[in-house]
Amino acid sequence: MVETFHDCTVMTPMSPCFKTLLFLLLFILSIIPGHQSQYSHPLDPLTPAEITLLQAIVHYSYPTSFHIVNFHYVGLEEPHKSSVLSWLRNPLKEIPHRQAFVIARIDHVTREIIVDLSLYQIISDQVYDGYGYPLLVFEELKAAVNLTRTYGPFLESIKKRGLEIEEVACGSYAAGWFGEKEASKRIVRVLCYYLNGTVNLYMRPIEGISVTVDLEKSIITHFRDRLMVPVPKAEGTDYRESMQMPPFGPPMKQITVVQPQGPNFEIYGHRVRWANWDFHLSFDARAGPVISLAAIFDVEKQQYREVLYKGFVSELFVPYMDLTEEWYYRTFFDAGEYGFGLSATPLQPLRDCPPNAYFIDAYFAAQNGLPVQMPNVFCIFERYSGDIMWRHTETIIQDQEVREVRPDVSLVVRMIATVGNYDYINDWEFKQTGSIKVTVGLTGLLLVRGSIYTHTDQIEGEAYGTLLSENTLGTHHDHYLTYHLDLDVDGYANSFVKSRMQMTQANDDKLPRKSYWRVVSETAKTESDARIKLSLEQADLLVVNPNKKTHVGNSIGYRLIPGSIISPLLSNDDYEQIRAAFTNYNVWVTPYNKSEKWAGGLFTDRSRGDDTLARWSHRNRTIENEDIVLWYTVGIHHIPSQEDFPVMPTLSCGFELRPTNFFERNPALKVKPASPTQWLNCSAYG
Amino acid sequence: MVETFHDCTVMTPMSPCFKTLLFLLLFILSIIPGHQSQYSHPLDPLTPAEITLLQAIVHYSYPTSFHIVNFHYVGLEEPHKSSVLSWLRNPLKEIPHRQAFVIARIDHVTREIIVDLSLYQIISDQVYDGYGYPLLVFEELKAAVNLTRTYGPFLESIKKRGLEIEEVACGSYAAGWFGEKEASKRIVRVLCYYLNGTVNLYMRPIEGISVTVDLEKSIITHFRDRLMVPVPKAEGTDYRESMQMPPFGPPMKQITVVQPQGPNFEIYGHRVRWANWDFHLSFDARAGPVISLAAIFDVEKQQYREVLYKGFVSELFVPYMDLTEEWYYRTFFDAGEYGFGLSATPLQPLRDCPPNAYFIDAYFAAQNGLPVQMPNVFCIFERYSGDIMWRHTETIIQDQEVREVRPDVSLVVRMIATVGNYDYINDWEFKQTGSIKVTVGLTGLLLVRGSIYTHTDQIEGEAYGTLLSENTLGTHHDHYLTYHLDLDVDGYANSFVKSRMQMTQANDDKLPRKSYWRVVSETAKTESDARIKLSLEQADLLVVNPNKKTHVGNSIGYRLIPGSIISPLLSNDDYEQIRAAFTNYNVWVTPYNKSEKWAGGLFTDRSRGDDTLARWSHRNRTIENEDIVLWYTVGIHHIPSQEDFPVMPTLSCGFELRPTNFFERNPALKVKPASPTQWLNCSAYG
Repeated sequence: MVETFHDCTVMTPMSPCFKTLLFLLLFILSIIPGHQSQYSHPLDPLTPAEITLLQAIVHYSYPTSFHIVNFHYVGLEEPHKSSVLSWLRNPLKEIPHRQAFVIARIDHVTREIIVDLSLYQIISDQVYDGYGYPLLVFEELKAAVNLTRTYGPFLESIKKRGLEIEEVACGSYAAGWFGEKEASKRIVRVLCYYLNGTVNLYMRPIEGISVTVDLEKSIITHFRDRLMVPVPKAEGTDYRESMQMPPFGPPMKQITVVQPQGPNFEIYGHRVRWANWDFHLSFDARAGPVISLAAIFDVEKQQYREVLYKGFVSELFVPYMDLTEEWYYRTFFDAGEYGFGLSATPLQPLRDCPPNAYFIDAYFAAQNGLPVQMPNVFCIFERYSGDIMWRHTETIIQDQEVREVRPDVSLVVRMIATVGNYDYINDWEFKQTGSIKVTVGLTGLLLVRGSIYTHTDQIEGEAYGTLLSENTLGTHHDHYLTYHLDLDVDGYANSFVKSRMQMTQANDDKLPRKSYWRVVSETAKTESDARIKLSLEQADLLVVNPNKKTHVGNSIGYRLIPGSIISPLLSNDDYEQIRAAFTNYNVWVTPYNKSEKWAGGLFTDRSRGDDTLARWSHRNRTIENEDIVLWYTVGIHHIPSQEDFPVMPTLSCGFELRPTNFFERNPALKVKPASPTQWLNCSAYG
Repeated sequence: MVETFHDCTVMTPMSPCFKTLLFLLLFILSIIPGHQSQYSHPLDPLTPAEITLLQAIVHYSYPTSFHIVNFHYVGLEEPHKSSVLSWLRNPLKEIPHRQAFVIARIDHVTREIIVDLSLYQIISDQVYDGYGYPLLVFEELKAAVNLTRTYGPFLESIKKRGLEIEEVACGSYAAGWFGEKEASKRIVRVLCYYLNGTVNLYMRPIEGISVTVDLEKSIITHFRDRLMVPVPKAEGTDYRESMQMPPFGPPMKQITVVQPQGPNFEIYGHRVRWANWDFHLSFDARAGPVISLAAIFDVEKQQYREVLYKGFVSELFVPYMDLTEEWYYRTFFDAGEYGFGLSATPLQPLRDCPPNAYFIDAYFAAQNGLPVQMPNVFCIFERYSGDIMWRHTETIIQDQEVREVRPDVSLVVRMIATVGNYDYINDWEFKQTGSIKVTVGLTGLLLVRGSIYTHTDQIEGEAYGTLLSENTLGTHHDHYLTYHLDLDVDGYANSFVKSRMQMTQANDDKLPRKSYWRVVSETAKTESDARIKLSLEQADLLVVNPNKKTHVGNSIGYRLIPGSIISPLLSNDDYEQIRAAFTNYNVWVTPYNKSEKWAGGLFTDRSRGDDTLARWSHRNRTIENEDIVLWYTVGIHHIPSQEDFPVMPTLSCGFELRPTNFFERNPALKVKPASPTQWLNCSAYG
């Protein structure tokens, strides 16, 4: 060991000395919590130790004494699907090399870097000079706010409005792209709000001021104070319990869930087993929760069968419908610009999740590349809401009544992302019947515009929103959530089948009926066959394994049961819609391609739409009997109402993936109902 | 009293003697359970005493010694809306006269009879000689089965198939109407199934035999044994827990809900109060649960405000898509033919409803007019499923993090109707945010066709279904549920507003954006303006009170958030679709009309479509600023899959009625969160 240290004057990434140092570092890090456990899995998120290690490796190549190094994204560079699947078949063998994917801005240049954590070295380092920029990072967003809050003309504007700077809170917002031909700068807009008597700053926008900050230069490049508009009053906006005044509604006695014998799930590292399900839960700074390798145990076949190789929120598109100077650019891509995972909020036990929930932490890399702990990012809990999994009462058998009921118990994985004003409650729910239900609950605060109006009678022309309260316009907007669903239905080679229900004339005078519907199943050959506008279809949409059949010959499949059906209402040639062209269809299918993860492109901030799902799909690749990915966009058009003020009741949307001839029969047929029990005499704590 | 009895040789309905007898009867009945309580309400369902009384009154006019009297429908003849509303304003005054609406077949003639229970007399008695017949009744359906099971040629057919008659179970099915010009007879079809080793008779149809029974004459009028098809095997069809064989999945530890301090709802007779809601829950033999006078307490205004005068399932249409001789007529109207309420199943505590549920009985009139108790028809329970009512985490305020979360607790009213093979779980859910969510869960057993096929490779031509198991075809079919929603939004004069979101070109070169959507609100003037095919609309659909505004001037309203969107796939001129023309649009609005309750017509059995919602709407009446009724049809097209065999996992659909500028602000803003508590050391019983 002494010799090795001796060599340390010459430190190259491959030098034994460097490796030894890193090895020591890794050893030290390994004893801090969060390090890789006995349950290591190739898809585990990077541990704090690994993040620290990769930072050291990047810094070794780009010492901060010579370079400006900012980490914008740090996440697992996933092993090839084949490696993962091969490991899965033999989990006793060592996991594939751990690698990290890093997007860094180094000396004002975007770099995509792959670090091999087993080799202690960078194995790929590429400059990206296309359109768009990586995720915005907290520190620079905060710096932009600080710049603004100390900027003379801004202080002047605040003073001019009779406001106190101490009561001003600001946030930084992605600027979008609106057809500029010249190279885009890394800029953000800063928007400010007024507290003074409320914590609900979003209900008190300070309108009329435009501030643009160049993030690279840390300077304000544009400032304009265009008009003065009253700041809506604080009264009635605070949503904290402590600030509510009587009268109140009737007090409510408690209701809660209990599992006196403990939970039914087991967690091995990042792998979750519950009832007939087995899946891996990971965290990604951009996507938030990533469900991988979800497989369901087939009791008859006595084996786990693959369903979903990977599922996650690929992008969120939230365009506002206000064309005024201070508003038009608000066409946000919450995952690609801010990081849906980075926006995760620590879940509050007994409030955000029920008492039987188990909480999981996560880690991300700060701007300097060091790991930051995010406590309680996920919760996992069993749900019993009083619903029924299946039932039947049979009365037509003589002298016998049959009544069989199976109450429904499911498993929920939850993450809540608070992207500025809005809170997105993301639930993945696993059911014993084989269904995976995905639900997004929208709550939090509206983005409102300050206005001169105090009554709808005064409104002239286009207000772009609903008058929610005096001087407060709730701006029309949309929420689109695009899910990447890499289904591997009982194997990776799958096809997409549209089973259209077609009205059919009987055309036979001897028949008493004139019509019926029949099923016309069409297997999508190429990507264009699989672009679906749901409003135009009456069809079951299936991902099937064409290489396997049930005993009686049906294609083994899972089908998508869509929730809300949304169509874009922006023109196709409008810039934000070009960037969000992945919302042009509700459903797309692409062949699996490791690089096609982000529907709005890898570099979404200020993107120009040249790397979207719509572009990839345009290649019209073959998707029949291939490893395919299903993309589904769920969403709502939101006309705010006064009930959304000052805080919005949850509005939910979602979808279901439901086994369809995947099993030979109802997989929950044999689920034993819990013996009917009432729990009494509970004692309380907490 | 003696004198009165003395007069009893002359008994006319108005004679003092008759009245005294009835009064005595009423007095005796009043001391048996279920009688009108101190909480009497004009919309209460008929009590057993009242049913007994009305039977006596009808029998007095039509003595059974001279007449054949069969009761087909007995229910409350509701007081006029104005009387109910006037009583509601002063509930200390006596309730309006109690009246019963009776549909009876007397001497083979359909009569609509109104009995005044306070006057002890029939106040209206009309012969109905139009198309269609009243609800089928249990006793005659059973008689039709018994006729079949003892019919020589049928026994022959059973024997020919090598089956044992003791193991045959049969049901009677509505025959529909398929264009016959001559007067329709009251007939049913009898379908038989084979038990022999299973209780899941629906998976073992005995195909090829057609039996038609004339209900009036109690004779078999048509019998045909057309072809022999294998009866699918019993193996694998039984769904009873006791019949399941290993291997099993992992045993599950219990999970349940507790309310150690008791429930938050109070029930006064048929009136329910919970949190900010007050509503009346009634039972109707045809509709099942009827929610009336749902009003929500406005904490700011310190008063209850009306939302829903009445809501119920008006009709269910379940057409099967099989044109063969034994199947084509299976186009069922579950409410109008069988009675959705009559099909209610007794709810099993701890299974059909959670441990914190409260159960309510109901009564219907048998064929002879006497009351029959239906135990546990409804359950009412509070739901805490781990969902969040609203939340926000605020992080951009310096040195302060704000985190407010309100877990969601709601109230559910449930009835489950088992209409032959299918089980419909009907939930009305009331939320503290002001929403009413309606959910229908479909479970139970498919109607399958016996078939020669054992593998899909053998299928030639149209199979009309999915091969679920050997010799078992799960027939394609639809479920449409049409809800009658008599919204009275803050008063009875309402309008229907379609707030269309319209893509709009900016058309201004100075603007960076090219497009946005704006809201174009259209108030429906007449019924034709309010016929909506949801797949063609991007709009919020509102019922507003045009006579009231919020402080800032918005129309006070509730909006319909549709769930699944279904369009009919039968040709408009096909007979079953003519009868079900109310499904031609997803949404209709009609002016309130006391007689327009049943979307498929009052006399649905063998109806010809001349009394449907579509016909009423055709009159194109004025609906602006009127007392209006919203009709919404939810449903699914069902291509069965093997997972639906032998018992189907619940598939849900539904809708939400959500306050939209009804409140000045979020009505759940001040809801106090229950103090965070974990309950421990519970002890079990049961």
